[in-house]
This record gives sequence, C-alpha cells and structure tokens, in this order.
Amino acid sequence: MGGTEVKIGLFEENGIVAAKTSIPTRHDDNCGHVLEDAAEKIDSILKDMSISKENVIGIGIGIPGPVVGGIVKHCVNLGWSSSVDAAGIMKKLTGINSSVLNDANAAALGEQWFGGARGCDSMVLATIGTGIGGGIVVGGNILTGKNGAGGEIGHITVEYENGRQCNCGRKGCLENYASATGIVATAAEVLEKYVGKSILDKNSLSAKSVFDAAAKGDEAALETVEIFGRYLGRALANIATIVDPDVIVLGGGVVKAGEIVRAVVEKYYRESAFKTVADTRIVLAELANDAGIYGAASYAIKNK
Amino acid sequence: MGGTEVKIGLFEENGIVAAKTSIPTRHDDNCGHVLEDAAEKIDSILKDMSISKENVIGIGIGIPGPVVGGIVKHCVNLGWSSSVDAAGIMKKLTGINSSVLNDANAAALGEQWFGGARGCDSMVLATIGTGIGGGIVVGGNILTGKNGAGGEIGHITVEYENGRQCNCGRKGCLENYASATGIVATAAEVLEKYVGKSILDKNSLSAKSVFDAAAKGDEAALETVEIFGRYLGRALANIATIVDPDVIVLGGGVVKAGEIVRAVVEKYYRESAFKTVADTRIVLAELANDAGIYGAASYAIKNK
Repeated sequence: MGGTEVKIGLFEENGIVAAKTSIPTRHDDNCGHVLEDAAEKIDSILKDMSISKENVIGIGIGIPGPVVGGIVKHCVNLGWSSSVDAAGIMKKLTGINSSVLNDANAAALGEQWFGGARGCDSMVLATIGTGIGGGIVVGGNILTGKNGAGGEIGHITVEYENGRQCNCGRKGCLENYASATGIVATAAEVLEKYVGKSILDKNSLSAKSVFDAAAKGDEAALETVEIFGRYLGRALANIATIVDPDVIVLGGGVVKAGEIVRAVVEKYYRESAFKTVADTRIVLAELANDAGIYGAASYAIKNK
Repeated sequence: MGGTEVKIGLFEENGIVAAKTSIPTRHDDNCGHVLEDAAEKIDSILKDMSISKENVIGIGIGIPGPVVGGIVKHCVNLGWSSSVDAAGIMKKLTGINSSVLNDANAAALGEQWFGGARGCDSMVLATIGTGIGGGIVVGGNILTGKNGAGGEIGHITVEYENGRQCNCGRKGCLENYASATGIVATAAEVLEKYVGKSILDKNSLSAKSVFDAAAKGDEAALETVEIFGRYLGRALANIATIVDPDVIVLGGGVVKAGEIVRAVVEKYYRESAFKTVADTRIVLAELANDAGIYGAASYAIKNK
C-alpha cells in the first residue's frame, strides 16, 4: 500500500501470479478507507476467478511505515499518525487470515522468494530511490528489530564531519550520499569544482542524467558515480561484516541504470570488506516494483 | 575451549550451575587430544555426581574459530588448520548429543540466557579485549552468517584515511581503535602531543592504566577514553541501525573498568544513533569469563 496506489497480487503458493492489479489510494479521512477499498477489490477478484475464501491461505499487507509486533506504528504516506492494526482490520473485512509488514522488508522477502536472492537463506536488500531503504533476511525471516528499524541502512552514519543534512534530523546518513537525492547533491558539488566541460546540466540534474552521462564517458559524471559507489560499497562492506549474508541485492529506481551501478558498488565493496565476507555476491534486484507484492505474499504463506 | 584451558560447566536446564571446572589445553599433536581430554573429564564429572548419560540433554562446545554448518573451519588457538567436526567427535567419545559454536557467539548466548541481556529476544554483544569480538542474537538465535562472520564487529572499518594497520590485513578496523590494544595506541598518540603533565607512563601503557588515570581526572587519560568511546559508540549506533536489538552488552577484559566504559560508549551512542534506536539500553556483561560456558549450555539445550 503506497501513497499513490495499492498494488494487489493473487499468488499461488509456488510463486505464480494468478492475478495482478492496482487501485488508487483514496486519501479521504486520512486514508481511513484504504483497507476497505483493498478488501473490496480482493473480494471481487476472488469472485471473478471463482475462488472460495476457504482456499486462500492469507493476505499479506506491505505498509511504508514501521511495523512492530504486527501493528503499524504510523504511516506518513497514508496519513496514519497513530497505531493501526491493519492485519486485524483486513481479517475482519475479508474473513481471511491477514498479516502486515514494512514495505522495504516485503521487498526483501520478495527478492528472496523469487528475485535476485532466490534460493538464499539470508540477504541484505538496499533499495536506492529518493532515499535508501533496506531489508535484511536471516534464516529465511525478516530482521524487523525491536522498534521496527531492522535494516534501516539508509540511516547509518557515513560522514561525521560536515555531513549533509538528513530528513531524519541527523547529519551524514548514507542516504544523503548514495540515494538519487545524494547523487544529485554530489554531482552539483563535483560540477562546482570541475574545470573541464561536462554534458551534465547543473540545472536539471538527476540520478538518471548522471548515469547516462557516465555511460558516455563524461568525466564529472564518472567522478560522481565513483563517489556514490564508494559510499555505498563501503557501507555494505560494514553491514556484511555484521550480517554475513548469502547475497547483497541492489534495488530501487536508481538501479534501472543497471550494471554500471552494480559494478561500481561491487568495486568499492571488494576493496574494503573484511576478508571473510569479501567474496559475497552483489546482484541487481529482479522484481522491480513487484518485489513488495511478492514479499507480502511470501509473508502470508510463512504466517499460514 | 581456549588455547590455555578448557572450561567445563554442568548446567541444569534452568541455568543453575551444578558443577564447574577446567582442564589445561594439551597442545600435543596440534591439540589433537583436547576433545578426548574434555570427554574424559565430562565422563568423570558425571560419574562423580552419579548422573546417568541418558539424563544429559547435550554437550555444547565453544571454539575460538569460525563455525559453519556445525563444523569448525579452523582454529588458530588450538592449532587446527583445517576443518574439524568437533561435535561429531565429542558425540562419538561420550555418546551424548553434541553441538559446536563460535566462542564469541557462545558468550552472546550466555549473556542473553543469564547475563546482561537476560529476558531479551535480541542483543548485540561487543567483547572488548586484546581485539574486539562480537555476537548477535536475533529472535533467540545466533546470527552466524554464511561464512561464520556474523557479528564480527571488530572488523567494521571506522577509518578510511590513514587507518591503523589491522591483523586482518586491512586498515582502520574498529578493533584498532576501541580494543585494549587500540586504547594503548591512542594513549601513546595523545601523550605524544600532550603538553601538560600526565600520570600515565608512556612506557607501560595498558587499558587498565588509562581507565585508572581517567578515574583520577588525568586529562590525557580522559581524552583517550573519549576517543575510545567515540569510536565504539558511533560503531554501535550504526550496528543498531541495522540490527535494532533489545539491548547492547559490553563485555571482555576492558569492561572490568566498569561504569566509566559504559558511560562514555553510551554518550557517543546516544549522540549519533538514528532516532528510532537512540534509546536502546547499553549494559555491562554480567557473566565475565563464564559467559562462554553458559552460552554453550544454552546452545546445547536449544539443539536438544
């Protein structure tokens, strides 16, 4: 469930997608009807496909907010300012067993089930978009943490002196350097000092324009990409020293640029990682925007 | 099992220690008899106490080396240069179900079972001695990792420019700054630049002498303690952003100095942690050198 739309997928237990759709997120009454709307759509999908509710294992719900002990603590994107028992409400509405998890965690479970980390028991997902989200799977289970902050890799501190201001109130978080926003900030700094010519337009910078220019050999863009890779590769190396996962998966909008992203992160990862984890595979996510529905389905199956 | 002695404890399932002893580690044939010696001692303890082997749930063995899939990969302290199925050998020798784990992980499980983290489902242990070891418990289970490196917090990189040389071959690892060795190196650097008088003797520095002098208000020692706390507190803040544990436990020889260690680590932790995990409790370990046997016993019970 996002601030713009609610994606809905009907999965078979083997991961096959039997149906996929989405409905717009209705913002009336602080998204007070979003669960009802989703429940209605679920009912109509099942009816259309002549599937009896008794044959549905469960409903998994991914929410862009912290989930602790099965309760959504709050959700900025949906305007929920206090706790919501989303799973309990969904079960009441549909009569189907329901469970809820954080959406970044859902994406991690999805990539583990049928994406870049399939077949792996443990993984770290870094979702590189406007910010950096993350999800960690250990022994097949999401590492949620006491406060639902498990895997919040965007907020590990990477700069203690003159760090860039973060939305979280602190300075120098990883996402200020290695997210799309961070890449744009770095490109602006690089261009400020750069004496040569660059095809980058400092007035319309984006992560995409930086990776496109880098692919064409633009020096300022290449320097920006190196800085991005250095921050993210080093941070992932430290994370792997703690978690020692089977695989590290890079997802989110920024990885649409593909191999150039993976390669530069891997370069700095290999250079700085503790030797025991220096060979850990680094791969691109494979499910793109569907990672969340795959993961929510996987979570529902785990909780059956 | 350590390079000097093998500690042996007989535990009841409720954590009560029924017997505790140790035998010297015999180094003949690359410690090829250490498991036999321990098995013999176990047999004699059970005989002395008239306990039938059928009533023993299991034997847990803590080894100072990486353990992957129940196999000790190697162990420098015991001179084992290749894989040893320590649990399988122990089971053959005693007829009792046996399991093996890394000793830092055992200490973490021990502190979780009956030490500073009792009652907690998840915890991070930092063992601050000559180096820095660590163990992470998530959902009641040790996070071992794919290569047995889970919780190797001593080797996260904290200095990328002019980092101190680490035994692991890299530079700037946490243990080069926040272990007993690191504290001595820092004190030497501080004294080098210090213009005032200090009670610290630069020719016989130790972590203990630094904390003793700091307790007496010695400025150079206090500065050294701050630097130690800054490195460890900041590193633990980043680790908590990934793992979000119930509690962080500080153990190892250095914490014999007590509250001064905890307080300075906590100060820098609170200052730099992501807000969601900023209130995480930081406590001192409570089981000292017995943490390992508690944890090995706890592991044997988990694996029954």
